[in-house]
Amino acid sequence: MPAIAGVSLQVARARIKYAGRDDLLLVTLHRGTSVAGVFTRSATASAPVQWSKKVAASGKARAILINSGNANTFTGVQGVADVRSTAAMAGRAVGCRESDVLIASTGVIGEPLPVDRVQRALAGMESGSRSASWIRAARAIGTTDTYPKGAVRQVRIGDTEVSLCGIAKGSGMIAPDMATMLAFVFTDARLPTPVLRTLLKEGIRTSFNCITVDSDTSTSDTVLLAATGRALNGIPQSATAPELKAFRGALKELLTDLAIQVVRDGEGASKFITVDVSGAASNAEARKAALAIANSPLVKTAIAGEDANWGRIIMAVGKSGARLFQKRLAISIGGITITHAGERVGSYDERKVTKHLKGTEISIAVDLGVGRSKSRVWTCDLTHDYIRINADYRT
Amino acid sequence: MPAIAGVSLQVARARIKYAGRDDLLLVTLHRGTSVAGVFTRSATASAPVQWSKKVAASGKARAILINSGNANTFTGVQGVADVRSTAAMAGRAVGCRESDVLIASTGVIGEPLPVDRVQRALAGMESGSRSASWIRAARAIGTTDTYPKGAVRQVRIGDTEVSLCGIAKGSGMIAPDMATMLAFVFTDARLPTPVLRTLLKEGIRTSFNCITVDSDTSTSDTVLLAATGRALNGIPQSATAPELKAFRGALKELLTDLAIQVVRDGEGASKFITVDVSGAASNAEARKAALAIANSPLVKTAIAGEDANWGRIIMAVGKSGARLFQKRLAISIGGITITHAGERVGSYDERKVTKHLKGTEISIAVDLGVGRSKSRVWTCDLTHDYIRINADYRT
Repeated sequence: MPAIAGVSLQVARARIKYAGRDDLLLVTLHRGTSVAGVFTRSATASAPVQWSKKVAASGKARAILINSGNANTFTGVQGVADVRSTAAMAGRAVGCRESDVLIASTGVIGEPLPVDRVQRALAGMESGSRSASWIRAARAIGTTDTYPKGAVRQVRIGDTEVSLCGIAKGSGMIAPDMATMLAFVFTDARLPTPVLRTLLKEGIRTSFNCITVDSDTSTSDTVLLAATGRALNGIPQSATAPELKAFRGALKELLTDLAIQVVRDGEGASKFITVDVSGAASNAEARKAALAIANSPLVKTAIAGEDANWGRIIMAVGKSGARLFQKRLAISIGGITITHAGERVGSYDERKVTKHLKGTEISIAVDLGVGRSKSRVWTCDLTHDYIRINADYRT
Repeated sequence: MPAIAGVSLQVARARIKYAGRDDLLLVTLHRGTSVAGVFTRSATASAPVQWSKKVAASGKARAILINSGNANTFTGVQGVADVRSTAAMAGRAVGCRESDVLIASTGVIGEPLPVDRVQRALAGMESGSRSASWIRAARAIGTTDTYPKGAVRQVRIGDTEVSLCGIAKGSGMIAPDMATMLAFVFTDARLPTPVLRTLLKEGIRTSFNCITVDSDTSTSDTVLLAATGRALNGIPQSATAPELKAFRGALKELLTDLAIQVVRDGEGASKFITVDVSGAASNAEARKAALAIANSPLVKTAIAGEDANWGRIIMAVGKSGARLFQKRLAISIGGITITHAGERVGSYDERKVTKHLKGTEISIAVDLGVGRSKSRVWTCDLTHDYIRINADYRT
C-alpha cells in the first residue's frame, strides 16, 4: 500500500489492555484535510463516538487517535472527560486544537480508559516522527483480528492521479470485548466536505451496512474518510460530477473490499457466505429478507455443518417480514436451483449442493417473487469456535 | 394429569421419520367443543397451519391430528392435498367431517408427507379406543425434546369445578428440523368461542410470545385451546365476566408454565434466563429491549461461559431501538446492582455476579430510565451443544 500525501502514521505500545503489541495509532492529517464519518446508531454509543460525531460534523480534522483494548463505553462523566483529555494530548503531539482530533476506541465496555498510559505512549511518539506502514497501523487497531485488513485503489479525477488507502478492524475478541468494527479510509484527493459525506454515505450503504457476523451491533462502530487534498486535482462541485465517476466506483470497491475482509475474519468463521435476495417489493424488504437469512443461527449452523438444509432458508425469509409469494419463491445454493413454484424441483440433486457447501465460498440466492428490488449481504457461518471465543471467561 | 371429560387421546407409531417411538397423536373432542387457535405469522407457514387457521376460524372442532418428524411445509399443491386427505382420514376415524379436524405437523421442511403411513397408523387406531395418558401424548408430538411437557390447573367457574390440561413440544432436533413449537390446551369448561379466543390471545401475549431460544421463528408454531363444555358450568357472557377471573388466571399460569418448559429444554440449553426490562417508554419498547438481550448471541454465550460481561447487555439495549436515557440506565444480574447513573457503581463486586452465573437460574434486570412500562422475556444460553445439534448432517 502506497503512502498518501498528507497522512502520517505513528504507532505505540500503550499497554491499555494488550501487552507486547502496538495498541495505539496516531494519524496526523495535513492542514485542510476534509473528513466525513459514519457512526453506530446504538443508543449506548461510546464516549469516543459521541466526541467524533461532533468533530466530523465540522468537516475538518488534523488527527485521529485510535486505541484497541478499551471501548470507553458506558464510562459516564469520567469517560467523556477522558476522551477530551486524550484529544488534547494528541492535539499537543500534532500541533492542533483538541476539537480537530477524531477519537476511536474498541475493546471492553464499562472499564475506565487508562489515560496515563495513553499519555505516556503519545509522549514517546513525539520524538520519532517517521510514518509507520499501513500494515503496522492496521495491526495496532485490531483486537483479536487474525490478520490485518487493508485495501488500496488508484484512479484519476480529471487528469490527476489520486490514491485511496483504507484499513479496518473486525470482529475478533480475546475475551471480554464485543465484536466491533472500525475502518479508516484516506485519500490525497481534494474533495469538499459535502462531496466527501455524500460519497461515504453512498459507499457504506452497499458495503459495511451489508455485512453481519452475529447480529450484535457494536457501541463503537465507526468509518472515517479523510481527504488531504494534496493531489491538487480540480475541485469537483458535487458527488455526481462526471470527473468523480472513477473515484466513486473506486471508493465503493475499496469499502466493499474492507467490509468483506471483516466478514471473512468473523469470529470463528470457517465459511464466507454471500446472500442475494431478488424479486422483492422494495430494496428495504430485500435487505430485510437477506439479513434474516444471514443472521439466522439455524441457517449459519447448517452451513457450518455443510448440511443442505434449505428448509431453514424458507423459515428465515418467512419470518423476515418481507412480502413474498410462496408459489413463486425460488431458492438456489451454489447456483443449483432447489425450489420453484412453491416446492422442490423434481430434478433436485442434494449431492451437488452438499459438494458446494464443502467449499469455503458459499452463495445463497432467493427470489421472493413479488417485485424487482434486490439486495446483497455478506456473512459467515456459526461454529463451535464462535462459542469458544465468546463463552470464555475474561482473564 | 387428570382426564378431561370430552377429550380422548390415541397415539401410534406411523414411522413418518422416527422409528421405534410414537409419532402420531389423534385427539378426539366431544361434540360441541369450542376451539381457538394462534398460529405462526411466518410468510412461509406450513400447509397444516394454513388449514388449521380455517378450521379454528369456525370456532368448532371434533379432532386434532398431530404428527412429528415432517412439517409438511413448502410442499406446494401436494402438501395442501395431503393435509386435506389426512384430515379426511382422521374424520373417518372420529366420525366427523374433514373440516372439523385441526392438523399440526412439525419436523423437516420441504419433504412430502408420507400420507400412506399416516393412513395405516390411523386405521390401526380405530379398533382400540382407550385414551392414552397425557405423558404418552406429549411424547408422541415431541421431536428431540429431552422430556415431555405438560401442565395442569383446576379452578372453579361459579360453583363448577373445571380442569385445564396442556401439552407442548419445544425446540429440539435430531438433525434437519428447525426449532418448532406446538402447544395444545384442553378444558372441560363450557366457554363460547369468542370468549375462548379472547382468553387465548391474552394468555399467549405474556407466555409463548415472551420466549425465545434462538430468534428463529418456526413455520409451524401453533397453540390450540379446546373447551369441551362437559363441566356444564354456567356460560359466561364475556372474557371479563367476574366468574371467569380464576379461570383466566389459571389459563395464563398454565400457558406460562408450558412456555417456560419449552425454554428450559431449548436446544443445548444449560441455563434458564429471565430478562426483565422496566422504565421503558412503552410496553412494545420494553419487549423490544428484552428480546434484544434474550436474542443476543454475545449475551447468551457470556452466560454460557459464566462470564459477568455486563457490557454486552449495554450493547444489546443500545442496538434494540428502544428509547433509553444512558445516565439513568440501571443493570442488575442476580439482584446485584451493576450500573447506576450511566456508569458502574463504585461498590460493584464482580465475584457476586459470577457466583450467581454459576447457577442454572439466571436473572437479568434492566431499567431504561425513560418511562414506566415493562416486559418479561424468558430464554436460555447459547452453548456448544446448540452448534452440535444444528450443524449435524441430516441422516
